[in-house]
Amino acid sequence: MPQRLYVGLDVGGTSMKAGVVDDSGRVSGEASLPTEPERGQDIGLETMAACIHQAIDAAGTTLGAITAIGVATPGSMDIPAGLILEPPNLKPWRNVPVRDYIARTFGKPTAFQNDANAAAFGEFWVGAAKDVRSLVLFTLGTGIGGGIIIDGRILEGAQSHGGELGHTKIQAIDGRLCGCGRRGCLEAYGSATAVVQRTHEALAGRASALSGEFTSRDVFEAAAAGDELSREIVDRTAYYLGVGAANAMHTTNPEMICFGGGMAGAGRPLLDAIRRYACELAFALPAKNTRIELAVLGGDAGFIGAAGCARELVAT
Amino acid sequence: MPQRLYVGLDVGGTSMKAGVVDDSGRVSGEASLPTEPERGQDIGLETMAACIHQAIDAAGTTLGAITAIGVATPGSMDIPAGLILEPPNLKPWRNVPVRDYIARTFGKPTAFQNDANAAAFGEFWVGAAKDVRSLVLFTLGTGIGGGIIIDGRILEGAQSHGGELGHTKIQAIDGRLCGCGRRGCLEAYGSATAVVQRTHEALAGRASALSGEFTSRDVFEAAAAGDELSREIVDRTAYYLGVGAANAMHTTNPEMICFGGGMAGAGRPLLDAIRRYACELAFALPAKNTRIELAVLGGDAGFIGAAGCARELVAT
Repeated sequence: MPQRLYVGLDVGGTSMKAGVVDDSGRVSGEASLPTEPERGQDIGLETMAACIHQAIDAAGTTLGAITAIGVATPGSMDIPAGLILEPPNLKPWRNVPVRDYIARTFGKPTAFQNDANAAAFGEFWVGAAKDVRSLVLFTLGTGIGGGIIIDGRILEGAQSHGGELGHTKIQAIDGRLCGCGRRGCLEAYGSATAVVQRTHEALAGRASALSGEFTSRDVFEAAAAGDELSREIVDRTAYYLGVGAANAMHTTNPEMICFGGGMAGAGRPLLDAIRRYACELAFALPAKNTRIELAVLGGDAGFIGAAGCARELVAT
Repeated sequence: MPQRLYVGLDVGGTSMKAGVVDDSGRVSGEASLPTEPERGQDIGLETMAACIHQAIDAAGTTLGAITAIGVATPGSMDIPAGLILEPPNLKPWRNVPVRDYIARTFGKPTAFQNDANAAAFGEFWVGAAKDVRSLVLFTLGTGIGGGIIIDGRILEGAQSHGGELGHTKIQAIDGRLCGCGRRGCLEAYGSATAVVQRTHEALAGRASALSGEFTSRDVFEAAAAGDELSREIVDRTAYYLGVGAANAMHTTNPEMICFGGGMAGAGRPLLDAIRRYACELAFALPAKNTRIELAVLGGDAGFIGAAGCARELVAT
């Protein structure tokens, strides 16, 4: 039986990315366009449609060859209703019926999913977690996203807030201020933004290779080069992410916990430290048996996962 | 069609309780026996069988009328294998094949489940959560147990550690010491034991109606009677449990969050304060829509839920 083709589209606050993906998860054409949410949601929907068309062109195929489409967007959202609600990353969009728009525009069955959930599903389908049935994914970037797969299914939650792991509290008392306006969230300790902020605070009066403006990547590189202050920051970051991992072990207790997103580019040293802390913090059985790995699909996880959701939608 | 009958057995560290339950969740006979784990696991298994027989007698029925049996025990355990592993509450038991023993002894299909998971399933089946599809239950007692239901199914987890919510970290930095030997667990802040400990610490040099030996119930009663120090303790306890509830909203995002166990006997004032804090700590949509309620099955939730698991096991 020939492979069927799907299009996955991952819409972010800055740019969106689409790709044509087959039943094996192989990508045969990609396209990317700026999202420019400030131009309004009508133009946003047209841009999504254009991005999907461009990906189909890039794959050297035609719309007629596409079986279904999957769209992933950042929350807030109503997944069952196919609605983008009021995502802070897509201001001023509000109540955008994205699933039905895409389905009508292309005349194809269309799946709709949260972007971090889609990334988790991508890793589950054809990525780091392809040989397990349950997964918790943390995406480490400006913020911390999360996606939970249980028995092969995305945990969407009653208000589409399943897996909002960046905003679980890890510091109930005197917690750091988070970008969400609340205190003590994992994101306020373990995101790339938090790494830079915590480094700036630690620099006051201390010697370091870092000064002026720098990114979380600079901090990880300075740590790798032996800078003591940077090493402390990286070690504490691993500890906080280890708390997140241990909490996942004691909540959904998945077979695998994955770290993706830009900051996961810090690679094995960070991962090894997270593993060490998570194992100290968790009960013996999950500590010993939970696989903690780096995500492997990189920035493509979202659209590949969205395509995977499209494939699930039409599975017989 | 006549109602079928099941026996549920809930084994705790101090005592065990069995009951005959019908398809509607109605209990028609109960029995309770001391567990006395120190007498060894062979006697423990015989006691379980005796307790099941007594419940059948108390219901005025016979083993022949029983369709299936469900057994719930505290972790650690291997649920799919039907094994009790090394529960701290059942020392010195180790690797006890409880499910197969009960199945063989009674010649009935036998379900096996974690006790807090069973309690959650009981509330979901015929208790506070009977009209929702997803639930997170916190059981507040000496420790804090947890059970998670998603789409009507218990989240068991890869190592049977799903819903070990008492041992999620809510204070990553300078956390209180927990009974598990680690720091910062929800249980170290929000359990009945923690309420008593925190009150003792707060009493140093302060006026209060409380002194000498007291229980968490005394603290809640003193708070209700207007004792300022006790009111502060109760308010902080509600805050910590609100953190637990908000974390549940941002992880599994269930339709309902329930509080059961002995300390939930503190009732509405505690529940109202938990609700207030959880709503402050969570995103607007789950904060507004998640129902936060008291469990209604009390100490029977475990055996009723175990009977419910038995019913699921033989459902056609």
